[in-house]
Amino acid sequence: MIRAAILGATGYTARELLGLLLRHPDVEVTTLTTRQETRPHVAEVHPTLRDRLDLTLENLTPKKIAQRADCVFGCLPHAASAAVISELLDAGCRVIDFSADYRLNDPHVYAQWYEVEHPDPERMSRTVYGLPELYRESIRGAPLVANPGCYPTAAILALAPLLKSGAIAPQGIIIDAKSGITGAGRPPKSHLHFPEANENLTPYNVGRHRHTPEIDQVLSTWANVDTNVIFTPHLIPMDRGELVTAYGDTAGDQSTESLLGELNEFYADEPFVRVVEHLPGTKDVAHTNFCDITARRVGNKAVLVSSIDNLIKGASGAAVQNFNLMYDFPETTALL
Amino acid sequence: MIRAAILGATGYTARELLGLLLRHPDVEVTTLTTRQETRPHVAEVHPTLRDRLDLTLENLTPKKIAQRADCVFGCLPHAASAAVISELLDAGCRVIDFSADYRLNDPHVYAQWYEVEHPDPERMSRTVYGLPELYRESIRGAPLVANPGCYPTAAILALAPLLKSGAIAPQGIIIDAKSGITGAGRPPKSHLHFPEANENLTPYNVGRHRHTPEIDQVLSTWANVDTNVIFTPHLIPMDRGELVTAYGDTAGDQSTESLLGELNEFYADEPFVRVVEHLPGTKDVAHTNFCDITARRVGNKAVLVSSIDNLIKGASGAAVQNFNLMYDFPETTALL
Amino acid sequence: MIRAAILGATGYTARELLGLLLRHPDVEVTTLTTRQETRPHVAEVHPTLRDRLDLTLENLTPKKIAQRADCVFGCLPHAASAAVISELLDAGCRVIDFSADYRLNDPHVYAQWYEVEHPDPERMSRTVYGLPELYRESIRGAPLVANPGCYPTAAILALAPLLKSGAIAPQGIIIDAKSGITGAGRPPKSHLHFPEANENLTPYNVGRHRHTPEIDQVLSTWANVDTNVIFTPHLIPMDRGELVTAYGDTAGDQSTESLLGELNEFYADEPFVRVVEHLPGTKDVAHTNFCDITARRVGNKAVLVSSIDNLIKGASGAAVQNFNLMYDFPETTALL
Amino acid sequence: MIRAAILGATGYTARELLGLLLRHPDVEVTTLTTRQETRPHVAEVHPTLRDRLDLTLENLTPKKIAQRADCVFGCLPHAASAAVISELLDAGCRVIDFSADYRLNDPHVYAQWYEVEHPDPERMSRTVYGLPELYRESIRGAPLVANPGCYPTAAILALAPLLKSGAIAPQGIIIDAKSGITGAGRPPKSHLHFPEANENLTPYNVGRHRHTPEIDQVLSTWANVDTNVIFTPHLIPMDRGELVTAYGDTAGDQSTESLLGELNEFYADEPFVRVVEHLPGTKDVAHTNFCDITARRVGNKAVLVSSIDNLIKGASGAAVQNFNLMYDFPETTALL
Repeated sequence: MIRAAILGATGYTARELLGLLLRHPDVEVTTLTTRQETRPHVAEVHPTLRDRLDLTLENLTPKKIAQRADCVFGCLPHAASAAVISELLDAGCRVIDFSADYRLNDPHVYAQWYEVEHPDPERMSRTVYGLPELYRESIRGAPLVANPGCYPTAAILALAPLLKSGAIAPQGIIIDAKSGITGAGRPPKSHLHFPEANENLTPYNVGRHRHTPEIDQVLSTWANVDTNVIFTPHLIPMDRGELVTAYGDTAGDQSTESLLGELNEFYADEPFVRVVEHLPGTKDVAHTNFCDITARRVGNKAVLVSSIDNLIKGASGAAVQNFNLMYDFPETTALL
Repeated sequence: MIRAAILGATGYTARELLGLLLRHPDVEVTTLTTRQETRPHVAEVHPTLRDRLDLTLENLTPKKIAQRADCVFGCLPHAASAAVISELLDAGCRVIDFSADYRLNDPHVYAQWYEVEHPDPERMSRTVYGLPELYRESIRGAPLVANPGCYPTAAILALAPLLKSGAIAPQGIIIDAKSGITGAGRPPKSHLHFPEANENLTPYNVGRHRHTPEIDQVLSTWANVDTNVIFTPHLIPMDRGELVTAYGDTAGDQSTESLLGELNEFYADEPFVRVVEHLPGTKDVAHTNFCDITARRVGNKAVLVSSIDNLIKGASGAAVQNFNLMYDFPETTALL
Repeated sequence: MIRAAILGATGYTARELLGLLLRHPDVEVTTLTTRQETRPHVAEVHPTLRDRLDLTLENLTPKKIAQRADCVFGCLPHAASAAVISELLDAGCRVIDFSADYRLNDPHVYAQWYEVEHPDPERMSRTVYGLPELYRESIRGAPLVANPGCYPTAAILALAPLLKSGAIAPQGIIIDAKSGITGAGRPPKSHLHFPEANENLTPYNVGRHRHTPEIDQVLSTWANVDTNVIFTPHLIPMDRGELVTAYGDTAGDQSTESLLGELNEFYADEPFVRVVEHLPGTKDVAHTNFCDITARRVGNKAVLVSSIDNLIKGASGAAVQNFNLMYDFPETTALL
Repeated sequence: MIRAAILGATGYTARELLGLLLRHPDVEVTTLTTRQETRPHVAEVHPTLRDRLDLTLENLTPKKIAQRADCVFGCLPHAASAAVISELLDAGCRVIDFSADYRLNDPHVYAQWYEVEHPDPERMSRTVYGLPELYRESIRGAPLVANPGCYPTAAILALAPLLKSGAIAPQGIIIDAKSGITGAGRPPKSHLHFPEANENLTPYNVGRHRHTPEIDQVLSTWANVDTNVIFTPHLIPMDRGELVTAYGDTAGDQSTESLLGELNEFYADEPFVRVVEHLPGTKDVAHTNFCDITARRVGNKAVLVSSIDNLIKGASGAAVQNFNLMYDFPETTALL
């Protein structure tokens, strides 16, 4: 039985993670933390979990957390996360970090996009990026896994195989992404007030969303190419679900069939990637750990569509998939 | 041309009111106020009104407002509203108050439900309740009109004629009400954060919503009966629209037809009440000043259904209807 | 391993049921039927289940079904359901019927509300009503269980204990109910077209919804009283979730605390009923088998609020709970 | 007073058009048609218009229509529309056609995309495309105006000025478009059933949407360039609103400021195009005839965002704007 802690357990990803871990036969959730001094019961914070788990959220030191947990799931904001994680690792915990702190390899890129010095720069380039479809073997033995961002997950899964094979050109890639509003987190904000966000559709952070360097880094290093993606996210009036529509120049005479064929071959043994012929909607994967992908040749472009649940495959489901790999459980445990 | 001011012009009712007043051929909006010290342009506060009106929101004294406006629409919170209105009236303005301050007649009832002493108690019982269907003639000459609450509007329009005629008994009336989320105002709150309120349905303030004494007072005084309504509001995951389902004991052998007949007769000449045979939905009246009402006899109860747009007939449209009466314009001006 | 069949597997309740059964360690789904002659793969009908189950929907005779399945979940329309079920029972299957066919005891009441003669009237009064909180022991041994309607589940769980104890009076009960739109089924209809139903709220079937006699029968027989509920359902613009707001005359000096105390005591050992002090929203129980209930004393009424997921506790979760009882598995298997 | 007829008056664009025309001081709506033989009253078809207009929908010949109307608004499906319009024109009516029939100039392109021979090919290239921002003067005198498609309106208004000035290159343009569901029309369809479309986001008709040749034709002819746009539409779970995110290669060292500057200059005198610095949402223009546009330089691309209400600026509002031009009324009449 692996003892698990969740740091920063008040948000949506923590709630979803708890729902999954409570179904995992080999996990006991022992610890939930908050950085506030009030000590709310988990049922107050997440009413849906009432009677499922009898724990109080506490403000605990890393040392204390390490006494209670073997594996720590970090749902803290960037920078705050790295500050805690090095101590947890030193104390012998294994860590799956939902923040962006260990996703990027280069402290300068981090400082540029996150506007803060990284507290633990040396560990950045040594940390595995927790996308099992690309890095499964490295995840297995890792003490620390950087859980991918939601947009990068959907974008990379669609683009990576075709970039590596050379079917699409690395330059000029456009990623037009759409996300449900849980992706923006739980703290209320004016523009996410129901009557503002409902029946509304807005682009945001055009040309400056922090997932941009993450996508470029993973695509470039894994596929050994040099990308420079244009990334445009949009908020969609729905709770959950994320769709990436990506456009790349085809390198030659690729057809819809050949693009689908390459994707099918690459993902043939993957438990959570479904290459489909129809155009997938976000509801097809809502509340699941699946990523549905399709491709079309249009003019001289490959149009790729990739659909995930931003809270599951884009966050908490991916974390459990990583956890299963790290502790040698069947990869789909608690995820089907 | 009547010069109009809107006090507290940052909220949803102010935005809707502006949209209506900009269509009114005899109104010039000269003044918008905010209690903040920043002086935002109306286009920043209400992007939908960009290029429609070139005004800046200002923090102004009543005296200054009275210099610029003949008629003042008050969208301030309760208590704050009454504090300003007496000065405006003294300075010669006529006022339509959206707050609850002058709806109730009794300062003790006000203090009990609003938990604050009324700043201008003497004027309470002298102020007309701005529901044209019940008080049209008194509204015409009034210096100050108390614009009704949204729930009371829908509830009273359904119940009042049948209570006065004796078709339903005054005791034991249940008002089960449902409202879109603009009814809760524009300031963001945790439970109105999109992912909390969307795909959710919640009762609130059961047995202690402040519209309860307003409904009882108007029904009791106008119909000359003694009611004691049970009022239960619910939040519905939609922007606008309000539906009241009201239950009262039939006094005798009323049928669906006789109930509809009474309502039809009572509202025969009303421009904004439509008595319908089908069950009305909120979308039938969205973005309009109409109230659609129907009735059914079920068991020994009359079931009344009444549907309005909470921001129009429940607030800003009602205010313009009152304005038209006060200034002797055709009652439907700017409202169709 | 129990072999399961689902009849009429194209709808929402079948999809939810499949999701639950695929998590059940002791169930193998062997058979899915449709009354159409096309034989679609389950992944075409329910894209979310792609790669989870490799079955084709078939139009099969009861005899054929009985060869393949031990337990049959019937998701057929009323009348069509009873026509098949008697054959399945004769062939040795146990059956959990989602239709209304075996919920009512009296063929005349059935004929009056469903406007068709019952095909198997003799079995009606012998069939257990599958609400474990009231009829757990009878469900255990039953060959056939009538799975309750969604509205009756929410209404009965709130009202039954207080009626039996005498805390509320049986006459004059009002049930104002609100449901997400999956409750109306999967076949498209004009008034459920997205732009008609979205941002809309409508009452329907006022005074003549078929769940009315079901509620009255169960409350009256179980609590040994004579009820005659007024039942008013409303459609809410959300996928799933159901809230009942019920009003009954208190029999004496019941307080909010005493009402909550009675409910707490009655449901103390129930795994899926949570008596709460706050006002529950439908999202608290979405995608779960829980029913959250609270109570308030308002005036001389008890106001009861009860919240379920109409597709889970109101249909498929209840069916799995019944299945677990029938086959002696732990009652919460596959439901947490 | 211009007498107006609406052909095919059962849909959403007809309903919105009626709402606008009822506010127009110089229009009398005399005729509503349907191709069904039932003769429903407009209040049955559009409950929101009850008591606003006392007309019955009728199945009328073009000759009969021409007797009753000076100007005909055609809301018929493609092909059906052209079959009627030539007769109406011969009978002396002026026509604003919402269908695609007279938008394209080339019968072969029409036949290829609409899979039917055009019934009136000779008139195609002579008909003005009803986008006032590009073709105002030709619209004024036109007997027939082809009202633009919703996607083309949003896409062309963003792209045309920058293509003409040479700021962006004509080849390789990507138009990623998102629309509310009223854009799909009123007849119910399985994938638009509320529980299918709600909380869902789906691309559709990728690479083969019929608005593609319309966009290419107008951009190419007006800006005198040769485009070949990649157009990808998506369905968004909201009633109305349309957002186009368009990507084009910048021709040189254009900056965000210079792109905005060009747009501002081009649209300086337009009553319904607002060039904004912020990223516009669809709600900023909902229920209005405005198109809000912004631009960003990202990498070597210009990212253009354009937002309209698909039913107003994308259909009925545009029609009224065209009507005002044709009959020499102030262009904003009934539209503010």
